[in-house]
Amino acid sequence: MGEQNMGGQVAGPVHAGLSSTARTRHRRLREQGRTDRAELTEVLAAGFIAHLGVIVDGTPMVVPTSYGFDYETLYLHGSVASRSLQTGPEASGLACVTITLADGLVLARSVFEHAVNYRSAMIYGVPRLVTDPEEKLRGLRLLSEHLAPGQWDYVRRPSRKELAATALLALTLDEASVKVRSGPPDDGESPDAALGLWAGELPLITTWGDPVPDQGLADGTAVPGHISVRAGSRAFSPPR
Amino acid sequence: MGEQNMGGQVAGPVHAGLSSTARTRHRRLREQGRTDRAELTEVLAAGFIAHLGVIVDGTPMVVPTSYGFDYETLYLHGSVASRSLQTGPEASGLACVTITLADGLVLARSVFEHAVNYRSAMIYGVPRLVTDPEEKLRGLRLLSEHLAPGQWDYVRRPSRKELAATALLALTLDEASVKVRSGPPDDGESPDAALGLWAGELPLITTWGDPVPDQGLADGTAVPGHISVRAGSRAFSPPR
Repeated sequence: MGEQNMGGQVAGPVHAGLSSTARTRHRRLREQGRTDRAELTEVLAAGFIAHLGVIVDGTPMVVPTSYGFDYETLYLHGSVASRSLQTGPEASGLACVTITLADGLVLARSVFEHAVNYRSAMIYGVPRLVTDPEEKLRGLRLLSEHLAPGQWDYVRRPSRKELAATALLALTLDEASVKVRSGPPDDGESPDAALGLWAGELPLITTWGDPVPDQGLADGTAVPGHISVRAGSRAFSPPR
Repeated sequence: MGEQNMGGQVAGPVHAGLSSTARTRHRRLREQGRTDRAELTEVLAAGFIAHLGVIVDGTPMVVPTSYGFDYETLYLHGSVASRSLQTGPEASGLACVTITLADGLVLARSVFEHAVNYRSAMIYGVPRLVTDPEEKLRGLRLLSEHLAPGQWDYVRRPSRKELAATALLALTLDEASVKVRSGPPDDGESPDAALGLWAGELPLITTWGDPVPDQGLADGTAVPGHISVRAGSRAFSPPR
């Protein structure tokens, strides 16, 4: 569980097409960095839980949140970060948003070579509080459709009051890095291979379960197709 | 997707038995906080991916990492945080470690009431670099056994050189909060219930797949029982 372990790695180099700064350059284990903006989109598309890191009163704070995105912008729920925004983005308002998908365990012949197969994206930027009602609606829709495709058109949309009560943050997807580890352990040709131990991968598979109806539903309320179709299917799209 | 959404929530109040500080007090949505140290342990036991937030050169950095723990201490791989530790824990070395388990989607009658069912623990503390070889070995064993129970006794253990090459961080479990959302949407008795729409939960189920043998294995190398027994079983223990 040394350098090969998830915990021993930092994000890879900056992607082609994404800006290169001191924060995302100068990383160790460069070989695991990916260089394509498409791969950032792929990680964003595969997951739906982000960990938003902000500094509040000098202390780092890491909060789970759902997100949506388009090619240029990541949208996040913002009440959480409002405390950091209060001090003003100009001050120290930089945020780091990390999205991680665990794909399985890498079981090696030695403790040191154990690892986690995963995909991870780190995005840096100064969150912007979305105030324009049109952009807010668009951002919320991206978020909603990413989490629960089809619900936006099925359920009641946000009222003006609800919209006002929702804090939405926007982060440009300009500065980011993606890190991917996949495949078998790295010690297949090391002296440890002679130990004769079993080694390989133990995949993690996340699927949607059967919809659980709210007890208050009127008899005969059918599960709409856009929900029922997800049952049994993979959540967090598997790696290619 | 307003206040009820995962993104709209911050960690609940401090647990009984855990220290109460400004960072973990003064939270909104107090009703979702849990007050038992046992529940912190439960979240730690259920997951195995943590997001470690540190400040590096004034910028928050959120890095996924695996972890292990005992009653008092959380152990994390530390190469990642070494950059923040270089400036000295005395300076601004506070870290926030967040562990989140997504349990499903809460599909409400309005966009605003949509939410994620989840369990999340936030731990604050100044990471300590573990240098004592005995504690290091013990911490790595906790980490290894949490991730892959049985492997510590099955595979080759760390050599002195490997131990030296592994940076392990310890964080006391003194200051933490746990946040849990479970159950159906909250709008079952709201005016929206009259819309006649389907509403409920869509659970997320994460299981271990079948072990994938490394191609380099000698013919007939059997999958050991402690690995094969996991196939098909739930990863990230489900909520009670």
